[in-house]
Amino acid sequence: MQSKILSRRDLAFLLYEWLDVERLTERPRFADHNRETFDGALDTAERIATDLFATHNKKNDQNEPHVVDGKVVLVPEVKTALDAWSQAGLLAAAQDYELGGMQLPCTVEKAVVAWCKAANIATSAYLLLTGANANTLLKTATPLQVERFVRPMLAGEFFGTMCLSEPQAGSSLSDITTRAVPDPVDGPEGERQYRLAGNKMWISGGEHELAGNIVHLVLAKIPDAEGRLIPGVKGISLFIVPKYVLDADGQPGERNDIVLAGLNHKMGNRGTTNCLLNFGEGQFQPGGRAGAIGYLVGQPHQGLANMFHMMNEARIGVGMGATVLGITGYLHALDYARTRLQGRHPAQKDPAQPQLPIVEHTDVRRMLLAQKSYVEGALALVLYSARLVDEQRTAPDEAARTRAGQLLDFLTPITKSWPSQWCLEANSLAIQVHGGYGYTREYNVEQFYRDNRLNAIHEGTHGIHGLDLLGRKVSIQQGALFRAIGEEVARMAARGRDVPGDVAQYAAQLDTAWRRVEEVTLALYGAGDMNKTLANASLYLEAVGHVVIAWMWLEQALVAAPALARAEREEDRDFYRGKLQACRYFYQWELPKVEPQLALLAQLDTTALDMRDAWF
Amino acid sequence: MQSKILSRRDLAFLLYEWLDVERLTERPRFADHNRETFDGALDTAERIATDLFATHNKKNDQNEPHVVDGKVVLVPEVKTALDAWSQAGLLAAAQDYELGGMQLPCTVEKAVVAWCKAANIATSAYLLLTGANANTLLKTATPLQVERFVRPMLAGEFFGTMCLSEPQAGSSLSDITTRAVPDPVDGPEGERQYRLAGNKMWISGGEHELAGNIVHLVLAKIPDAEGRLIPGVKGISLFIVPKYVLDADGQPGERNDIVLAGLNHKMGNRGTTNCLLNFGEGQFQPGGRAGAIGYLVGQPHQGLANMFHMMNEARIGVGMGATVLGITGYLHALDYARTRLQGRHPAQKDPAQPQLPIVEHTDVRRMLLAQKSYVEGALALVLYSARLVDEQRTAPDEAARTRAGQLLDFLTPITKSWPSQWCLEANSLAIQVHGGYGYTREYNVEQFYRDNRLNAIHEGTHGIHGLDLLGRKVSIQQGALFRAIGEEVARMAARGRDVPGDVAQYAAQLDTAWRRVEEVTLALYGAGDMNKTLANASLYLEAVGHVVIAWMWLEQALVAAPALARAEREEDRDFYRGKLQACRYFYQWELPKVEPQLALLAQLDTTALDMRDAWF
Repeated sequence: MQSKILSRRDLAFLLYEWLDVERLTERPRFADHNRETFDGALDTAERIATDLFATHNKKNDQNEPHVVDGKVVLVPEVKTALDAWSQAGLLAAAQDYELGGMQLPCTVEKAVVAWCKAANIATSAYLLLTGANANTLLKTATPLQVERFVRPMLAGEFFGTMCLSEPQAGSSLSDITTRAVPDPVDGPEGERQYRLAGNKMWISGGEHELAGNIVHLVLAKIPDAEGRLIPGVKGISLFIVPKYVLDADGQPGERNDIVLAGLNHKMGNRGTTNCLLNFGEGQFQPGGRAGAIGYLVGQPHQGLANMFHMMNEARIGVGMGATVLGITGYLHALDYARTRLQGRHPAQKDPAQPQLPIVEHTDVRRMLLAQKSYVEGALALVLYSARLVDEQRTAPDEAARTRAGQLLDFLTPITKSWPSQWCLEANSLAIQVHGGYGYTREYNVEQFYRDNRLNAIHEGTHGIHGLDLLGRKVSIQQGALFRAIGEEVARMAARGRDVPGDVAQYAAQLDTAWRRVEEVTLALYGAGDMNKTLANASLYLEAVGHVVIAWMWLEQALVAAPALARAEREEDRDFYRGKLQACRYFYQWELPKVEPQLALLAQLDTTALDMRDAWF
Repeated sequence: MQSKILSRRDLAFLLYEWLDVERLTERPRFADHNRETFDGALDTAERIATDLFATHNKKNDQNEPHVVDGKVVLVPEVKTALDAWSQAGLLAAAQDYELGGMQLPCTVEKAVVAWCKAANIATSAYLLLTGANANTLLKTATPLQVERFVRPMLAGEFFGTMCLSEPQAGSSLSDITTRAVPDPVDGPEGERQYRLAGNKMWISGGEHELAGNIVHLVLAKIPDAEGRLIPGVKGISLFIVPKYVLDADGQPGERNDIVLAGLNHKMGNRGTTNCLLNFGEGQFQPGGRAGAIGYLVGQPHQGLANMFHMMNEARIGVGMGATVLGITGYLHALDYARTRLQGRHPAQKDPAQPQLPIVEHTDVRRMLLAQKSYVEGALALVLYSARLVDEQRTAPDEAARTRAGQLLDFLTPITKSWPSQWCLEANSLAIQVHGGYGYTREYNVEQFYRDNRLNAIHEGTHGIHGLDLLGRKVSIQQGALFRAIGEEVARMAARGRDVPGDVAQYAAQLDTAWRRVEEVTLALYGAGDMNKTLANASLYLEAVGHVVIAWMWLEQALVAAPALARAEREEDRDFYRGKLQACRYFYQWELPKVEPQLALLAQLDTTALDMRDAWF
């Protein structure tokens, strides 16, 4: 039976036939690997996801975390699943051997992680926050901090969080007011110790009993000599603030001064505790006095830059989460459409004839094909981004590493936002395919839809990523990132031009679309007024996102078309035909949506800019 | 303080400034009415909705109906609210005086009903099903049936349902298998009595203790002499099947043979019980034997035609429900955007400056303006449809009545579907404006989003309405409905051409768009293969829907533009400016989405038609 979590066939296509991850094994870091070790990791992930994650996805949703005697209670299956994942070594799958990792390429690791996310997005959040936290510390922390906090996280003994937002500072991080004041007392081995006080909002995994400790990465401001906070992002520093202060042996000891102030009750993603934490209120008094003990990570006032590592990783993670929720919804809808009998063809006038599986209805196939084009396009983008991470880290020559970094930086807001928008739409279509049943909690798809709605909000809202793309990524390095993407698109379009049949036409469409993006981008920057340039940045994000996914589909078609010609087994031929048909769908139904968007942008439309509060 | 349920100002604009409902008072049926009586009904509705419906909307959602000792338990506020509504006479607001009604025009009644729906869609469902049930019976039932079932419903003593679907027959009603067999025993006053047996799914309001009785309107098949059911819709008849059989005095007596087989647990709309009912299982034995007692309504085998009255009314009701959920979400988002402080303008470089209300950010204004353009466009369409009902019923000359009926028939699938799609999108944007808070159940907007997702499913899915529009409404009466709409659009476009400024441009855009719809429709019917003609019917529904809403916006702009020129009070000028800006938004941002859709239709695209099951 085919899994309804993810398709191994599609993963194999993307990893081996398209992104050619086997070639990475030529590089020293991955020299011990081969397709068998990659598949072994995927097998393990599939098995644990299927047996331990998917099995409590609904239970998790229906038994939301709640507080009993000051402790957060979760269904016990959460810990079982997380422990199994860590014990199988999957939490550290991409880390160095020296840190207990498997040194898998990022591309393969992302495919591994896709399994637990698709099976249970809420439970997997604990793992992914922990991994991203550890990766951030590995970039900037001291060897002592790595020893004390990172190693236990990679072993699944401690879990991690990111504490950025505050009730008055969500998108506007420059307005945080959490204070970090140097402690007269030194920390372990003479490390400078701080005391933190402030309120942190939207902390996923912020409180629970799943691990021996929780390592909070906290943004806070160190006051100047007069006790004033420096306004803006320049005042922000990054701190490790553990739930339990470690004793001399590195074991969780005294309770730190961090209090759970309340759990948020979300529409979806209910299995992930999300809370308001109060730091330094004095309810706990580590070292005999109030104030949450923390340790500076990296340089003071560089907190946001340091945190950006975690944020960028988390953003690609959000894109992946949105994508795989889309995929599992699609696979559920497909399964339903193949088994549910309802109605007859329009030309069939005899009501005594048996009813058909609804997949036989063109409109149902349209909804399935739309889902396929969204979710497989999104998965391609996420894995392409992961492949860029591998290039950035391990490509033999520096120019290739730099270029991969540029492409990745440009794509990150799209990799985060496009799946959040369109794989949610896929989940809506999955409900629609199920009809009334899809709207009930007796089935699974309504939960995917609720879970997925979060993704356009957290790790930077849709609007913030629009500003990031148009206001920053397009223009930094004198436009080098933007040019790099244009070159990649042009290269693919040129390759496509020589392929017989529809692919050549797609290539031409893509080429035209990207040229139009270039024109429009110039027009926007010619406005001479940043308020005008950026007025419709969200629309720009959406339009460019669609063109990027069209590019991802052309990439896939360029692999599928010759593979179809070569394939001998009927099931392989069907698979490639499906890829080509989904590509056709995207070029026929989706890419044309971009032109009116670009036309609006090119006009420097001021409809929203001109609107006044009083007119609403 | 402005209500966050609905805007009275906007209702006044639509009812009095645009649809001119005061002119209806020149007609005999409405002769006792005037603007004061209309406003009086709206005042009452607003008060009850605000005090008794909105106040338990969240409680209703969080305390879902459940079964205790075989009875469905609801929060007590539901009954209080429903009783207040009935006792104020609002349930029968549009009915004849003779039936205890107020004889309000349908247009005004729909505006009245909008209040309770916007305040609490789940609780109001009981009223609306009851009203639609009563209206259906008033069309076709015998005087005795009216006396025994309709009068108590209009007084709020009995509630009504519609029982169409079965587990194996949802969209495909022709496949129902519920049987109705003549009973040897006669019913009251010699009425022919039937015994029904079968399972009915998705019955909203199907079981509860809110009223003295539940009047089920049930579709069933009368077997032929050999006991066989006639395949297809031709075999369907309509029956009244009360929960309690009435005694000789018309009071609820013996329990009928109808058993609650299970409650559905929905994503939203949780306060409305929705259930599977088993008829004729024998658990209750009215008159000493098994079989649910029912009474034929109208002629045998005409059940679907008779039920269509209820379905059409319910479809406009669904459109209204989707619309007002969009409106209340928009008003909540607007309120939040005016009070939430976050961030600064792009040009503001000083982070020490205070944060702004987020309505000052262009992207937030875009999201609010999009919501305004969707929800006020949808409300215009729903009230325009209601105005057509008034014309159809009370216009002095027959030609006008016929034409109103044609316009209404054509618009019904759009009035049902367009708000279900776009006011859901408005609710998504309302969440987005709230950021993370919007995703939590501590706020209200996530519920509106969950509630609204139902509307593209029930009373005919989106796909079914696409087929209805393109496969039926376009072609019946030799295309007379389609031509009638075209003439109305052309008339408005012609009027708009003479208005100075942007309105003339909108009129030209609308005219072009409709001509394109005409061309495309001809191309689709020229395919010579109904499978091809109808392959993309959902897309046709969406494209034509957008053009229709553009028309509704032109109608509003044609009122608002001169009113702005005349207005003296600043708040009136702001209101009209807002209308014109929302119209501008729709013509700049929305209507252009239609051209690629129409281009795809004109090509007779077969991407979905060609897709094979095996390729997924």
